[in-house]
Amino acid sequence: MKILIINGANMNMLGVREPEKYGYLTMKDLEKELYSMSFSMGIDIEMYQSNLEGEIVEKIHKALNIFDGIIINAGAYTHTSIAIRDAIEAVNIPTVEVHMTNIFAREDFRKISFISPVAIGQIAGFGFDSYKLGLQALINYLKKSD
Amino acid sequence: MKILIINGANMNMLGVREPEKYGYLTMKDLEKELYSMSFSMGIDIEMYQSNLEGEIVEKIHKALNIFDGIIINAGAYTHTSIAIRDAIEAVNIPTVEVHMTNIFAREDFRKISFISPVAIGQIAGFGFDSYKLGLQALINYLKKSD
Amino acid sequence: MKILIINGANMNMLGVREPEKYGYLTMKDLEKELYSMSFSMGIDIEMYQSNLEGEIVEKIHKALNIFDGIIINAGAYTHTSIAIRDAIEAVNIPTVEVHMTNIFAREDFRKISFISPVAIGQIAGFGFDSYKLGLQALINYLKKSD
Amino acid sequence: MKILIINGANMNMLGVREPEKYGYLTMKDLEKELYSMSFSMGIDIEMYQSNLEGEIVEKIHKALNIFDGIIINAGAYTHTSIAIRDAIEAVNIPTVEVHMTNIFAREDFRKISFISPVAIGQIAGFGFDSYKLGLQALINYLKKSD
Amino acid sequence: MKILIINGANMNMLGVREPEKYGYLTMKDLEKELYSMSFSMGIDIEMYQSNLEGEIVEKIHKALNIFDGIIINAGAYTHTSIAIRDAIEAVNIPTVEVHMTNIFAREDFRKISFISPVAIGQIAGFGFDSYKLGLQALINYLKKSD
Amino acid sequence: MKILIINGANMNMLGVREPEKYGYLTMKDLEKELYSMSFSMGIDIEMYQSNLEGEIVEKIHKALNIFDGIIINAGAYTHTSIAIRDAIEAVNIPTVEVHMTNIFAREDFRKISFISPVAIGQIAGFGFDSYKLGLQALINYLKKSD
Amino acid sequence: MKILIINGANMNMLGVREPEKYGYLTMKDLEKELYSMSFSMGIDIEMYQSNLEGEIVEKIHKALNIFDGIIINAGAYTHTSIAIRDAIEAVNIPTVEVHMTNIFAREDFRKISFISPVAIGQIAGFGFDSYKLGLQALINYLKKSD
Amino acid sequence: MKILIINGANMNMLGVREPEKYGYLTMKDLEKELYSMSFSMGIDIEMYQSNLEGEIVEKIHKALNIFDGIIINAGAYTHTSIAIRDAIEAVNIPTVEVHMTNIFAREDFRKISFISPVAIGQIAGFGFDSYKLGLQALINYLKKSD
Amino acid sequence: MKILIINGANMNMLGVREPEKYGYLTMKDLEKELYSMSFSMGIDIEMYQSNLEGEIVEKIHKALNIFDGIIINAGAYTHTSIAIRDAIEAVNIPTVEVHMTNIFAREDFRKISFISPVAIGQIAGFGFDSYKLGLQALINYLKKSD
Amino acid sequence: MKILIINGANMNMLGVREPEKYGYLTMKDLEKELYSMSFSMGIDIEMYQSNLEGEIVEKIHKALNIFDGIIINAGAYTHTSIAIRDAIEAVNIPTVEVHMTNIFAREDFRKISFISPVAIGQIAGFGFDSYKLGLQALINYLKKSD
Amino acid sequence: MKILIINGANMNMLGVREPEKYGYLTMKDLEKELYSMSFSMGIDIEMYQSNLEGEIVEKIHKALNIFDGIIINAGAYTHTSIAIRDAIEAVNIPTVEVHMTNIFAREDFRKISFISPVAIGQIAGFGFDSYKLGLQALINYLKKSD
Amino acid sequence: MKILIINGANMNMLGVREPEKYGYLTMKDLEKELYSMSFSMGIDIEMYQSNLEGEIVEKIHKALNIFDGIIINAGAYTHTSIAIRDAIEAVNIPTVEVHMTNIFAREDFRKISFISPVAIGQIAGFGFDSYKLGLQALINYLKKSD
Repeated sequence: MKILIINGANMNMLGVREPEKYGYLTMKDLEKELYSMSFSMGIDIEMYQSNLEGEIVEKIHKALNIFDGIIINAGAYTHTSIAIRDAIEAVNIPTVEVHMTNIFAREDFRKISFISPVAIGQIAGFGFDSYKLGLQALINYLKKSD
Repeated sequence: MKILIINGANMNMLGVREPEKYGYLTMKDLEKELYSMSFSMGIDIEMYQSNLEGEIVEKIHKALNIFDGIIINAGAYTHTSIAIRDAIEAVNIPTVEVHMTNIFAREDFRKISFISPVAIGQIAGFGFDSYKLGLQALINYLKKSD
Repeated sequence: MKILIINGANMNMLGVREPEKYGYLTMKDLEKELYSMSFSMGIDIEMYQSNLEGEIVEKIHKALNIFDGIIINAGAYTHTSIAIRDAIEAVNIPTVEVHMTNIFAREDFRKISFISPVAIGQIAGFGFDSYKLGLQALINYLKKSD
Repeated sequence: MKILIINGANMNMLGVREPEKYGYLTMKDLEKELYSMSFSMGIDIEMYQSNLEGEIVEKIHKALNIFDGIIINAGAYTHTSIAIRDAIEAVNIPTVEVHMTNIFAREDFRKISFISPVAIGQIAGFGFDSYKLGLQALINYLKKSD
Repeated sequence: MKILIINGANMNMLGVREPEKYGYLTMKDLEKELYSMSFSMGIDIEMYQSNLEGEIVEKIHKALNIFDGIIINAGAYTHTSIAIRDAIEAVNIPTVEVHMTNIFAREDFRKISFISPVAIGQIAGFGFDSYKLGLQALINYLKKSD
Repeated sequence: MKILIINGANMNMLGVREPEKYGYLTMKDLEKELYSMSFSMGIDIEMYQSNLEGEIVEKIHKALNIFDGIIINAGAYTHTSIAIRDAIEAVNIPTVEVHMTNIFAREDFRKISFISPVAIGQIAGFGFDSYKLGLQALINYLKKSD
Repeated sequence: MKILIINGANMNMLGVREPEKYGYLTMKDLEKELYSMSFSMGIDIEMYQSNLEGEIVEKIHKALNIFDGIIINAGAYTHTSIAIRDAIEAVNIPTVEVHMTNIFAREDFRKISFISPVAIGQIAGFGFDSYKLGLQALINYLKKSD
Repeated sequence: MKILIINGANMNMLGVREPEKYGYLTMKDLEKELYSMSFSMGIDIEMYQSNLEGEIVEKIHKALNIFDGIIINAGAYTHTSIAIRDAIEAVNIPTVEVHMTNIFAREDFRKISFISPVAIGQIAGFGFDSYKLGLQALINYLKKSD
Repeated sequence: MKILIINGANMNMLGVREPEKYGYLTMKDLEKELYSMSFSMGIDIEMYQSNLEGEIVEKIHKALNIFDGIIINAGAYTHTSIAIRDAIEAVNIPTVEVHMTNIFAREDFRKISFISPVAIGQIAGFGFDSYKLGLQALINYLKKSD
Repeated sequence: MKILIINGANMNMLGVREPEKYGYLTMKDLEKELYSMSFSMGIDIEMYQSNLEGEIVEKIHKALNIFDGIIINAGAYTHTSIAIRDAIEAVNIPTVEVHMTNIFAREDFRKISFISPVAIGQIAGFGFDSYKLGLQALINYLKKSD
Repeated sequence: MKILIINGANMNMLGVREPEKYGYLTMKDLEKELYSMSFSMGIDIEMYQSNLEGEIVEKIHKALNIFDGIIINAGAYTHTSIAIRDAIEAVNIPTVEVHMTNIFAREDFRKISFISPVAIGQIAGFGFDSYKLGLQALINYLKKSD
Repeated sequence: MKILIINGANMNMLGVREPEKYGYLTMKDLEKELYSMSFSMGIDIEMYQSNLEGEIVEKIHKALNIFDGIIINAGAYTHTSIAIRDAIEAVNIPTVEVHMTNIFAREDFRKISFISPVAIGQIAGFGFDSYKLGLQALINYLKKSD
């Protein structure tokens, strides 16, 4: 079982960007935690980050026939990108949407997600745990669908 | 550590209500799974269900000084109840919002949650797993806050 | 054939509440008329009234496997209750929505009904006759579905 | 007692138009049922259909001093015609609005009716029965007003 | 100088329709007053009324090269007809919009006029005088444009 | 019979302000035309202009028991002043709203008038003629009300 | 003279709930202050609190013919309950709406009150004083109506 | 293969109406071009124009079992007619929507089409070519569906 | 302790303006009542009225360091004046907003107050009593803040 | 004559992405068909696809002085990209907007196109034929403009 | 070269009003800075402040033929005054809009400016520097236009 | 002191793109002017342009610890990019938003800026001068913050 974990715009700034909201840990720290978790679960994961909407679209395309599931935190593109939504629909790979912060407790424009309706589900507000819970949720989902 | 798990309107119809959306398992089944999970984690949980908005409000009041955290699936009241939102704010107990279905892929009026902005985070779309992931998320959160 | 007739908030004030809108007859009078009508049609009816949204939800739950159809005048809850709507969907019993007044000729907030989309149909504006016509409509519907 | 029954745009396509929504019976079938019903009630009815908004307006004008009540299913004009609404107000003949389908369970633009606020009441969702119930409602109304 | 005076839906009901709003005088009375006024001004007028949107459109088409100006009270079509608006733009004849009632003191849907932006100006609220003032305004306009 | 003619913000700039919209004639020219017209009709008029919303409010107050009618072109205050609207309602003097330009063919914010609903009627789009027609309309109205 | 004082959802949490907004005094303290005030004014009051919308509705019903006036702070139900509004209209007892906080300086959804249009007036923002001023206002009102 | 080409309101004014938008050629010229094109393709076409919404509705009804496809430029009715939309749905004949102008570069009210969702596709902005391309598109579509 | 009482647009028309809404008493009567009340409370008040938004702004400026509190009934400016709101914020003097009528039971545009969010609280609907209660509320507030 | 054909986000997934909507043919197939068509018409075309909004912007820039016309199917960027719209305006090359599906029969967010107002026209709903018809339309347009 | 610098409502409170937003310097300080700047640039400036919308309107009128440019910070009137906008259009003097604070980072109602569309440009957020930059911008503009 | 000057989508088309709006000078010309200005001020600037939203995001990331301030004209991305907004917030470098045109006098969709609320201030409408004034404003700001 192979899972692709996609991080969108500004996620590479983790640990730098508004640490009171996102914490002081970096993407590298997240990566370490997720690799260790996936290793213990006997699954493969790949971490991917891009600040370009179109590159995320293409990464999703390339996931076809390679990955069994996708975890996506599209960052700001969550709220503006129909292209990423369409890419998820196009490859039709089970996808879980995650957010580190509680996007519903922030600005109004962060309350709309183009990705939610094409995802299995959504997890928001738990920092790094959002990814871990998302991974767990996705694996459970994939096992049930077998 | 004691966690209160609240289920709102119509959740007692699990297994009866639109099974193609919510599955054929009942609340009892959910209860069993959660009790077994909490037992293995060494925490206490209490399951509560009510179809009355005001009773849920009062259950939250009574949680004060007894429970360390709340998991809530307010069902239809998610979208209409300011009273439940105010109750959560009043007791100020860390709360995780869960939904079995992906509420963002359904009717428009289900996309608004009065509870989200006062919760730590939100998990939606994973059936019973939404509760389990929520429990995990809440316990992690409480441990970190210690 | 058994029909449940549900009356929502303030309907117990019939004859007291704004009589120029609702007439001087009381719920008891309505009950008598409907019992006599149902008797002559050879069907069973049960009249139920509650001012609590959640009790109406539970009454609908309990109708499952007992009643063949529901007539509902949810009063003010028509315009605010997703919980009642979900209950009707959950039990999946054919339901007719009735209103004594022409809700489309009153305040704007009375023009939205959460119940209409899950009901078979809607009858509004004919006083007690709304119930009688609703009963007739429901029985015809049930006979055709046999 | 004389009742005018008006059918608006596309109602002549009954039995042809989307039969899964409107059934396989034609306008002629409806006419037969309503004539037989009115005959047994000892009242006169006239059936009228037009696809032209303005012709419906004029038919309503001509009803003045001839008809005691109107049953109207204006079809698509329900949602767009202020002219028909004004005609009903102008002649001031008691009018019942009927729809064969549950217009509240269809497209959003069908949820607005310009006719509802000037009608006595509204009956929607019961196929041919909507007309029969409307006729019954109207006659009861007229008898009470005597 | 020839002026066409167009009356739209329900205007033939003048004297019948809601006399407390429109007065007890009929279209014939209006006609007489306008003919006498135009006679004394040495101009030709033609009075036209139709309840059909499309007939009004065609009357406007036929006005081309025959009439120097148009007075239009489109009645309910004021608020719903883009077709009449387009007809006025197509023939490009100076047009004055008139209304007997103060449409801004009535229902919200009467506050929108598709005709206003393509007319020279608008006169509303003065009963028959709206027509007379409109005629005066139009003639002054045409004289100035010579 | 005494008529007060009120001009609001920027009307003193007539002949200067965007002459392609308002013409090259000045307020003085308008005054002369209106005085001559009123003289021939045997009525008294007073012309008043102010750029201050509050002064217009006070002028309307002072009109009580002195003037029989008001012609008002409130300029920009038409679209923003509830105070002027309330003043007209307070003195309850018959008022005609006039505009030199066709306000419905300009920016959206000019399409809303707080004054229209408390005026007898509205005349817009005819330059100076809007005032003259307004005066005529008002006098006719006052004569009928006698 | 007998006055009913109704407190809605979460008001029992006074002194517990967000004390920086509502103060550290409890409902009991409020009760004492109001009883002492009413005693000195020679009137009877009854304090009532419920977290259930429907129970508040029924309490209002029961007030009929017993209470001369109502003070209501419906809490969160202020913004969502048409049922309470209808109950007030039904019993037709003079009602004053009070709020401890300035609801207009908080979240947008707290700016809408279904109760305001059926109340005599509204007092918001003065903590316990809102109740006392409301009581004073209501008694003055009732005395004037005698 | 028989194709019906419907032209709506004001299309008979082609060559007269705003020629800078629609060109100087008339409906007759369009007819000639389309007949010659259809002749060379070996198909039958019928050109129809009406300014009456209801007549267009009826023409569509009559197309049933006679025409294989419809090209429609409903003119102003595109934006206001649910009746025409319903007629197309009723007869269920493949329909292509065409417009001579780019309706998306004009007034906002021209950006909404009730017809688009029930058509196969839409072609706008190419003058007479819109019809020719529409005809080509429709024929290709019909051939593929065989 | 010195309190400034500000009355906005049209308040000088009290007793003249729509007496069925505002009563037959004049501003002078209100002044007398308030002076007598303040005298018995041992505080100083100053009554101020202006119909000019900008003069009210300046009166508020001048209140700085002179007055301890402000009672304001800005009349129509309540709903349109950001300038008055900003003035209150600028001087930062505790302010109570009062209205004689229940503004929530009137036109929609009276439901928005720019002043409410910068005031301590709001009292509406009690005629002259709104001022007296406001004075009481303000004095209590000021005493508590000491 | 040289034509640039631009395909936006996800168009490279043709044949993979939701084939029930877009068909089983791939971009290569489309390319072949268009090359063969352009060859027979004696014109040059270049096919370009990118998933990056900014690359499409730059491709349009580079088209200046090289291409005579543009066919664009911007995919999801149609609905979100002002940058692409501005690029088309900047180079001022005649552009035809095409879509394979009927975007008006899908989600609401696909009904808004930022490109339409700066294009000559729009063709939607005909699969590959949308491109071919667009090419034909563009060439006709360019020939007429010579 | 003569430049008029207009300050609107509450700007005279600079140094008093919310100093954390506007700083502790007063209007006099601003004046000194601007006079010294203009002196060194060899131009004449006049500083004007008024809290009355109408006086600002009149000051703009009087600027005609005297001033070559206007700098305006209309304060609260920025967001509510169509009268000031119309005055700027009327005199047609190049105008630069300035704001000391970043109005886009404050309340929603401060995001709308009636003045922006009739100004050359807008500078916001730089305290006193907004005026200085505005002066520089205006002078550059005027020099280029020579 | 080092300042980064970012230009977004289509800004490389300066001198080509709609010169009547943006002038005939190119980006190179702007660069020269800004370098010469910065040289004389003794500061370092770097000019950057990209048409890719994501590249701008990354450029902002890389500015951290290198640049003291940012001038940004994001072009079309101003109105659609939350990603760029988030990047500015993430690096927390003082940023000034500039636009060559008066974006408030253009299409409605250009009136919304996601960048404004996270910038110090905004300068729009002065062509190249917008950049120069922005540079001046930013340097003043940075000096004050030292």
